[in-house]
Amino acid sequence: FSLNITADCNAVLKALQPIFQEQGMTETVHNWEDHGYLATYIKKNGSFANLRIHPHGLVLVDLQSFNDHTKGREEVNQLLNKVEERMKELFHGNIKRVKRLPAILRGGVIDRYWPTADGRLVEYDIDEVVYDEDSPFQNIKILHSKQFGNILILSGDVNLAESDLAYTQAIMGSGKEDYTGKEVLILGGGDGGILYEIVKLKPKMVTMVASNIDQMVIDGCKKYMRKTCGDVLDNLKGECYQVLIEDCIPVLKRYAKEGRMFDYVINDLTAVPISTSPEEDSTWEFLRLILDLSMKVLKQDGKYFTQ
Amino acid sequence: FSLNITADCNAVLKALQPIFQEQGMTETVHNWEDHGYLATYIKKNGSFANLRIHPHGLVLVDLQSFNDHTKGREEVNQLLNKVEERMKELFHGNIKRVKRLPAILRGGVIDRYWPTADGRLVEYDIDEVVYDEDSPFQNIKILHSKQFGNILILSGDVNLAESDLAYTQAIMGSGKEDYTGKEVLILGGGDGGILYEIVKLKPKMVTMVASNIDQMVIDGCKKYMRKTCGDVLDNLKGECYQVLIEDCIPVLKRYAKEGRMFDYVINDLTAVPISTSPEEDSTWEFLRLILDLSMKVLKQDGKYFTQ
Repeated sequence: FSLNITADCNAVLKALQPIFQEQGMTETVHNWEDHGYLATYIKKNGSFANLRIHPHGLVLVDLQSFNDHTKGREEVNQLLNKVEERMKELFHGNIKRVKRLPAILRGGVIDRYWPTADGRLVEYDIDEVVYDEDSPFQNIKILHSKQFGNILILSGDVNLAESDLAYTQAIMGSGKEDYTGKEVLILGGGDGGILYEIVKLKPKMVTMVASNIDQMVIDGCKKYMRKTCGDVLDNLKGECYQVLIEDCIPVLKRYAKEGRMFDYVINDLTAVPISTSPEEDSTWEFLRLILDLSMKVLKQDGKYFTQ
Repeated sequence: FSLNITADCNAVLKALQPIFQEQGMTETVHNWEDHGYLATYIKKNGSFANLRIHPHGLVLVDLQSFNDHTKGREEVNQLLNKVEERMKELFHGNIKRVKRLPAILRGGVIDRYWPTADGRLVEYDIDEVVYDEDSPFQNIKILHSKQFGNILILSGDVNLAESDLAYTQAIMGSGKEDYTGKEVLILGGGDGGILYEIVKLKPKMVTMVASNIDQMVIDGCKKYMRKTCGDVLDNLKGECYQVLIEDCIPVLKRYAKEGRMFDYVINDLTAVPISTSPEEDSTWEFLRLILDLSMKVLKQDGKYFTQ
């Protein structure tokens, strides 16, 4: 509860106290004097509640319980309804905001919380752990979501879902490129999405270079991300494509030396590389090296796509 | 912390206790005997921590503080690092999962938490409240997100963002329909997205029927969702379109009676209608009535699109 006015902490405590006590909860109160009150209410079944009253007009209620969450939620809603009712009686029109957040589920078999790269909390509708393996480089998870299909998560970072065709289409040039008869080089792309989509477009030859870091990613994706990669990862060689399991830097150097040129280079390496090359000191140097080498293997009118 | 083994609650408490006490926090311990421990640690500055130890092998740490969250986060991370370290010393390989969730920010000017219709917690990168008004029917918010542009939120339900062109394209038939010279009827669609996209395609006439429930939605969208609706809501009439601010049921009945027929009916009414018509008892009856009436105004080879 955010209030428009300062809160008489003692009055709030006295008003809400009976709601928790009716539940047979035992109260412990801490009074900071200049930072308001914390009341902790403990129930016999192992549940407890924190009521934190800030004098400047913020009242927070946290409930924690261990139980069948469907049954628990109903009880919790009833209790929160009473708290909300009592607060409205007490403050009338002076409540600026009432916000009730969904319960956070911890300790279950399935972890539904996968924060974004910028640190935002996002709960997915995960209903199955499809794949969960540790490689020497990273943890590789594939989780099933009703909304997004199977989702590839690398060391906690949400990478790509089966529903993310739009990502693959965008990095291929949003449908505006003609790949027919073209020579294409894909750097990274271990989920197979780009390879699968380009092979459909009758290119002359697509070479995908995925380092051994990606081997277990490829293994997981070829089994469980079929909507993304189709059958293209089942073999490392097809009529118009090949997959090289090698670090891309030496491959690029070799191609540059041989004068092997491409119409398209598509860099789908992870945004923050897991570098194994010894020669570069920083992420930026690594990214610059890849860009420099890519330019060397690109035809005069070739195109380079990346995130 | 999810453990592979049961937890000696007293041993966990003894191991973690010093970390909180080093911070000058005062301890209160509750022992349930068959439900484990709750230790509450209170700091002089108004912060506190809950350590909940479940005997079957689940250890939960919650920290709550009121402060500049950037500074607070650093302190919190240091404390959690120590807790994690101590837990790993205590349980070695028997920790199944360690999960640290981003802080939940409450009481700020901007509310970043907008749960999904299926009750999942999602934090958006909201940085501005653009519009916030109560109509007699609902609360209408337009919030700016760096990721999605302006987002329309009706009574807490995320409706459409400026980035959601894909939604509008899908309900129009995913680019496979030819609207040139066609008669189109849009039911709802107060954000103006469908109207704006169809008008671009040189239809003969588009009629959009938005009830007065939508008037303030239209007002907000025409100002702040310009990427969605362009200038199409600036006037209720254009060369090849008109917007009727009327309940759609009587309009559909009138059209049916007059024998007015359409090539396309696009039903973009909210999934759970805010009904004002007196004749139907339930949501399903209301939906059925709209579907029946829509069929009556549809040409023999006409098409009906909805969510």
